[in-house]
Amino acid sequence: MDIDALRSANPDHWMRAAAIRALTLDAVAAAKSGHSGMPMGMADVATVLYEKHLKFDASAPHWPDRDRFILSAGHGSMLIYSLLYLTGDAQITLDEIKNFRQWGARTAGHPENFLADAIESTTGPLGQGISMSVGFAIAEEAMRARFGAKLVDHHTYVIAGDGCLMEGVSQEAITLAGRQQLSRLVVFWDNNSITIDGKVDLADRTDQVKRFEAAGWHVQEIDGHNPEEIDAAITAAKKSKQPSMIACKTHIALGHAAQDTSKGHGALTDADQMAEAKAAYGWTTGPFEVPEDVKAQWEAIGKRGAEARDAWEARLEGMSAGKQAEFARTLAGTAPKKLSATIKALKKQVSESAPSVATRKSSEMVLEVLNPILPETIGGSADLTGSNNTLTKDLGTFDETNRKGRYIYYGIREHGMAAAMNGMALHGGIRPYGGTFFCFTDYARPAMRLAALMKVPTVFVMTHDSIGLGEDGPTHQPVEHLAICRATPNTLVFRPADTVETAEAWELAVTQDGTPSVLALSRQNLPTVRTEHKTKNLTAQGAYVLADATGKRQALLMATGSEVSVAMAARDILEAEGIGTRVVSMPCWELFEEQDEAYRKRVLPGGPVRVAVEAGVRLGWDRWLFGERGKREKSGFVGMHGFGSSAPAETLYEKFGITAEATAQKVRDLLMGNWQETRR
Amino acid sequence: MDIDALRSANPDHWMRAAAIRALTLDAVAAAKSGHSGMPMGMADVATVLYEKHLKFDASAPHWPDRDRFILSAGHGSMLIYSLLYLTGDAQITLDEIKNFRQWGARTAGHPENFLADAIESTTGPLGQGISMSVGFAIAEEAMRARFGAKLVDHHTYVIAGDGCLMEGVSQEAITLAGRQQLSRLVVFWDNNSITIDGKVDLADRTDQVKRFEAAGWHVQEIDGHNPEEIDAAITAAKKSKQPSMIACKTHIALGHAAQDTSKGHGALTDADQMAEAKAAYGWTTGPFEVPEDVKAQWEAIGKRGAEARDAWEARLEGMSAGKQAEFARTLAGTAPKKLSATIKALKKQVSESAPSVATRKSSEMVLEVLNPILPETIGGSADLTGSNNTLTKDLGTFDETNRKGRYIYYGIREHGMAAAMNGMALHGGIRPYGGTFFCFTDYARPAMRLAALMKVPTVFVMTHDSIGLGEDGPTHQPVEHLAICRATPNTLVFRPADTVETAEAWELAVTQDGTPSVLALSRQNLPTVRTEHKTKNLTAQGAYVLADATGKRQALLMATGSEVSVAMAARDILEAEGIGTRVVSMPCWELFEEQDEAYRKRVLPGGPVRVAVEAGVRLGWDRWLFGERGKREKSGFVGMHGFGSSAPAETLYEKFGITAEATAQKVRDLLMGNWQETRR
Repeated sequence: MDIDALRSANPDHWMRAAAIRALTLDAVAAAKSGHSGMPMGMADVATVLYEKHLKFDASAPHWPDRDRFILSAGHGSMLIYSLLYLTGDAQITLDEIKNFRQWGARTAGHPENFLADAIESTTGPLGQGISMSVGFAIAEEAMRARFGAKLVDHHTYVIAGDGCLMEGVSQEAITLAGRQQLSRLVVFWDNNSITIDGKVDLADRTDQVKRFEAAGWHVQEIDGHNPEEIDAAITAAKKSKQPSMIACKTHIALGHAAQDTSKGHGALTDADQMAEAKAAYGWTTGPFEVPEDVKAQWEAIGKRGAEARDAWEARLEGMSAGKQAEFARTLAGTAPKKLSATIKALKKQVSESAPSVATRKSSEMVLEVLNPILPETIGGSADLTGSNNTLTKDLGTFDETNRKGRYIYYGIREHGMAAAMNGMALHGGIRPYGGTFFCFTDYARPAMRLAALMKVPTVFVMTHDSIGLGEDGPTHQPVEHLAICRATPNTLVFRPADTVETAEAWELAVTQDGTPSVLALSRQNLPTVRTEHKTKNLTAQGAYVLADATGKRQALLMATGSEVSVAMAARDILEAEGIGTRVVSMPCWELFEEQDEAYRKRVLPGGPVRVAVEAGVRLGWDRWLFGERGKREKSGFVGMHGFGSSAPAETLYEKFGITAEATAQKVRDLLMGNWQETRR
Repeated sequence: MDIDALRSANPDHWMRAAAIRALTLDAVAAAKSGHSGMPMGMADVATVLYEKHLKFDASAPHWPDRDRFILSAGHGSMLIYSLLYLTGDAQITLDEIKNFRQWGARTAGHPENFLADAIESTTGPLGQGISMSVGFAIAEEAMRARFGAKLVDHHTYVIAGDGCLMEGVSQEAITLAGRQQLSRLVVFWDNNSITIDGKVDLADRTDQVKRFEAAGWHVQEIDGHNPEEIDAAITAAKKSKQPSMIACKTHIALGHAAQDTSKGHGALTDADQMAEAKAAYGWTTGPFEVPEDVKAQWEAIGKRGAEARDAWEARLEGMSAGKQAEFARTLAGTAPKKLSATIKALKKQVSESAPSVATRKSSEMVLEVLNPILPETIGGSADLTGSNNTLTKDLGTFDETNRKGRYIYYGIREHGMAAAMNGMALHGGIRPYGGTFFCFTDYARPAMRLAALMKVPTVFVMTHDSIGLGEDGPTHQPVEHLAICRATPNTLVFRPADTVETAEAWELAVTQDGTPSVLALSRQNLPTVRTEHKTKNLTAQGAYVLADATGKRQALLMATGSEVSVAMAARDILEAEGIGTRVVSMPCWELFEEQDEAYRKRVLPGGPVRVAVEAGVRLGWDRWLFGERGKREKSGFVGMHGFGSSAPAETLYEKFGITAEATAQKVRDLLMGNWQETRR
């Protein structure tokens, strides 16, 4: 690479881009870890994007109509930190740059949306950024359709690397974006031909241009170090009616001894080589020092959008008070006042009518009343609409002909759906929910984890939540998935027992602002167990006494979801035998854990024999089979001890021993002091 | 569709294919569940494949040189059951067909490899079959390179639907297959334009032909109901030097009222409509009845390969006894005799030299001695070779120029890698292992679960197993992943503490024949804790006493992996204070669980205060914080309570309180009767 030629061709541009390269080298060297090569390779693209195209105002990172910039290749985090510092972001200061990757710094190893206002999303797990960006672009279209182009009129820009494009989720994302003709989405592919293991060719020879074209994208190929080509390509991309991919041929670690090698991907810390690279750049200031004129140019870029933002603010103020309030409410994600009353009314109605329905159907009943009062919801399913019961009346289909539609046919793309939903939630103004089978939580895992880490309230509607789905067999029968979701920090896992609990769970899910929710719902019909109407949301406490012992309390049954009615039937058997039995419904462990010890002890008092009933694995249940403060109760577990099987649901419950009689027998055994089997 | 024209054009073929359609209709109707449309749509393709191309002998489903047939669209399981019954498979009898989807039947809702010898792999979770087939094709190439084309010379045929192709993992699979030029792989795409939610167009407009071409595949487009076109396409595919995709335009639920509709995807049980369809087929026999001449034709097809198999057997018998024995050993997956001595020698050496190394490095040390004596291993990494330490000397790179290479650069394709490994293990003759970061277990989850369900001994080398990876931050720091893997049935989760335990874990992993293993390995250096050499594999017991209390036992510390040395240091502190402390290393919960109660009680006796130390979430640990038989000990947990953070590893351990001193303090608190915090 002829660095001198690049420098002399566009000296001002060159120095602006060199600022990114130099800061990256300095920060990585100080941290003795990180990824130098990617920011150094993509500095030219980022510089042109920020200078000429990105609509933003560095002083107002929350401006709702800003363009979004997603660094899908999140390991190159110094690119984003450099851009923020240079343009005058209030949070990413020079001190933060110097503290790259240190405890308490905003400049984490990978960009974290919760550490700086101007970081749109956490990235790092490859493929997630490009996949979330589809959700950003969908949210923009939906918000524009709802509030008009005077308030919503922006683009989503993404930098993706070879890693992002090799991850399967990127295929789900680009085909979804292609189908949806998301013309405001522009992806830069950092085509540097290098991965950690060596040349890309070692592992991949995909014709990416052809692949994106096959997915319905507008594609251009440019020299990623030529500012004119970059500018022209972005201009053309913005005009395209399709989502746009710009393949940027770049040199990783440009100008460094490690240029164009896999070594260049990682931390370049050799002092002499750094000095040589800086010399080649014509960069003569000391570590972390940006020449004043260069910094001034960058700060001007940071202010470039101020005027547009002022105009936007004026347009907003020109709107009716009602529209302004609704726009603000929608962006804030605040629930409308009607929500609580609506849920209460539904609860009252179903407590009285006591339907016997699957909780996936209960969920649909709830959505039928929620969706009309929550215009910010966008629902969907990964090709299981009729099974997940996620579509309600009047939502309409979201597609290129109807951006007001609020239902997305995601196709068989659980992972892409989950990531897109995260993107919508991050964009703001949308409360996304989407369905698949609970077992296929597996496919969506990386995005579900990211929702929890990023603190976004995505709602995952996971139906067919146990062997109760029957004949489809063990590939479709979740047994470990409740444990998986419960093990994940900052995730509410709801497993409601009937329509009342489902309504309560939905109320909690759509009022979260920093926590995703998983709704584990049954395929099979379940009786209504909450037949006595309570206005209070009992699910909000995580667990509560559903039915108490009539006489002396000798047994305590804990259950969730479809097994609550099994526990209730076991209680009937035991009470008839004179064994006083309490049933505790535990629709959400995480919320119960948050209650004070006094409440937990009131619900789960010491003394009686304890049996947990859940058609999943035991892992995690021992925490509740304990008493509080070290008083351990005689206890047992009725549930699954391995994978399921293919047969009708009732047969499976019988064969796997998850029945009222088996539960009652476990209690009798424990009362008799028979500890056989309690380990299982 | 003009059924009459199809019938009259190829009457014999038609009736053979109609047998599949009629059996499918009957079985689904009897079960009142299942998927009728796909077998009805792909019956012609399957018939021609079995009749003219597939190398198999129905009487010998284990013949090692048979062609493999993978039904990636596993919901169409009646296709495979019909084919097996018709060709005379000994296990899939007519009774089994009649018991479709019932308890105890081999004819589960989705094909299960462990229920019938002739079912090559479990499928159903979409995209898995096509992705495993890449592993089948790799295994064939590798085995052919090792044993010669006289013994190994077969193809892998796959039927994939739109669902398989929409799943992201399929992109990882097809690009890997394209890069590897797996010319023996032939995929039929059931291009019926229908998914569960409706027309494919609702969710997807991908040009699949172009997409496969972009990945380096040979592609043909045919009428999937025209036997001549099918035959010609398969012939051409077999000649191609690239993997081959045949886009078969078909009609789902051909000839039924539900043809070409999403209703046709599911269970077609209406008696009148079934009768109409059968009449259109010219099918006049009763339910489950195949006309004798049609059955005879199919049985002849089932015997078609007998001659080739005889010839193959003769070739095998003509080989040297040594080659025959090695071929048999390799296929059986039996460990060579040298294995045990090799592991013991390494253990002795490292117990003496007591290196301080990361367990990922320990793993490399083990592989350096294992790979030379296990020629059946094929290693690899999802683009983290230098980090996972999965490459050893002399393995060589497996690619189109070197099929004897035993190391695969999988690229950034964790999911595709895991599925391909499963395919290799299913094919037989290969013991696959592959690495990525433990956190990216998330990406590979669906395939890891399938390994457990299918009972294949795939080895997942998961390095960077905790916050101990440091600066990369929470996106890369697993906290819930030990719980996730432990929650999964039939999975051995090893978290070794040092090189000795790593050697023991590897010995166990490579001698499994029905259980996958996860090796959770540290990025950071760890001291050798097993400094006293024992020939016995202590990890095989799952947990054992690493160091006992010198005086009265007052505390018992349980730990795994990198926290074992933390527990040992805590023991030093406590013993110095006169608090007798035992340390139990628990490298594999599952194996400990399998020990008898007497052993478990010996290792974890009642009485002392118990503290578990693990840099992961608590979920699951309560099972061990219990005593046996209901005697609950005073106990506490030192570990993670949420996501990690970006900072140097030592800082993180300090900040998150996972230190020897914090562990000692927890013991002191418990001994003082202070129950604060024990819930955490």
